[in-house]
Amino acid sequence: MPFVRIDVLGTDTDRLDALGRAVHDALVETIGIPPDDRFQVLTAHDGGRGTLRYDDYLGVRRDDGIVYVAITMRSGRTPAQKQALYRRIAELAEEYAGTEPRNVFVTVTENESVDWSLGNGVAQYADAEGAAGPAPL
Amino acid sequence: MPFVRIDVLGTDTDRLDALGRAVHDALVETIGIPPDDRFQVLTAHDGGRGTLRYDDYLGVRRDDGIVYVAITMRSGRTPAQKQALYRRIAELAEEYAGTEPRNVFVTVTENESVDWSLGNGVAQYADAEGAAGPAPL
Amino acid sequence: MPFVRIDVLGTDTDRLDALGRAVHDALVETIGIPPDDRFQVLTAHDGGRGTLRYDDYLGVRRDDGIVYVAITMRSGRTPAQKQALYRRIAELAEEYAGTEPRNVFVTVTENESVDWSLGNGVAQYADAEGAAGPAPL
Repeated sequence: MPFVRIDVLGTDTDRLDALGRAVHDALVETIGIPPDDRFQVLTAHDGGRGTLRYDDYLGVRRDDGIVYVAITMRSGRTPAQKQALYRRIAELAEEYAGTEPRNVFVTVTENESVDWSLGNGVAQYADAEGAAGPAPL
Repeated sequence: MPFVRIDVLGTDTDRLDALGRAVHDALVETIGIPPDDRFQVLTAHDGGRGTLRYDDYLGVRRDDGIVYVAITMRSGRTPAQKQALYRRIAELAEEYAGTEPRNVFVTVTENESVDWSLGNGVAQYADAEGAAGPAPL
Repeated sequence: MPFVRIDVLGTDTDRLDALGRAVHDALVETIGIPPDDRFQVLTAHDGGRGTLRYDDYLGVRRDDGIVYVAITMRSGRTPAQKQALYRRIAELAEEYAGTEPRNVFVTVTENESVDWSLGNGVAQYADAEGAAGPAPL
């Protein structure tokens, strides 16, 4: 379910791949996402048809190693879970891709179970919740 | 109003175009979107500067025919309407673009009327609601 | 904090850059975003691997000068602030990039403080709120 977009500068697709794995492994480790629940759009911007902008907001020194990670997922994760997620993304981005933690920018947008169709034209999460609901009297 | 991003693999822009029409027609048919209320970003990723990742989560076999459809729209649609929407997107993706329903992944993110400016620097939906509000006593 | 995606047609990266500045300056002027709080993904679509679709919905004549601006930010801005923001984006898009206001399409998606990590693996906004909370009895 998490649907993840990762945007970086440059043309290094190996780095992009490593960042995708970093984010996914962090989701699995910290908030219980199943290992095969992986849906990502990975984009490298080389300046020819687009680019990224950033600044040193909040005193964090950023450079062209910047990584934008935008995660859409269902609501329900606690603040502590999200904080663990951010920490682990930063750790694994460094371990897998050599990206410094200062350059890892993450934002989360939440929606609900009925807002997902994971194939075959059905709303799998909403159907599952309906099926698991209270039995009729 | 719906703002739609569609991401696919490959370089087949005809398929991408067909998928855009499939999603739009499904929005019109199932949740009452006006035919000319069409705002889409269509992107094909050929591996050179980005790619898509996916897995067989929930037992759905996916392959490089994967289509990510991310819809932003105002809140207010019922679960039944969304389920009809997903079903129809999958049907039309197959009919128009030859995409198998198992490869059609959809996620919806909702916001409110005041979160849209459809041109000319104004918030058309919020303005309309204000104008249609209760008359002053 | 605002995380902004801008999508245009064509290959004019100077125009894309000017649009990025227009949106950022409008955010600073109208809703109090700090000048160095700038995080943007700018993409030009040249038709080869993707494109934009649009129509004349609500009687607004659009053409290939269309600009899609998608802003993710924390909740809390008032409708009046958002309306000022849209107005100013349209004004500055014209001033900086020669884009006609009719072609400026903006949508806002909101989340919460804990949904942001602006580097170093921490949730800066949530941490700040926690630190500023009521002292223990």
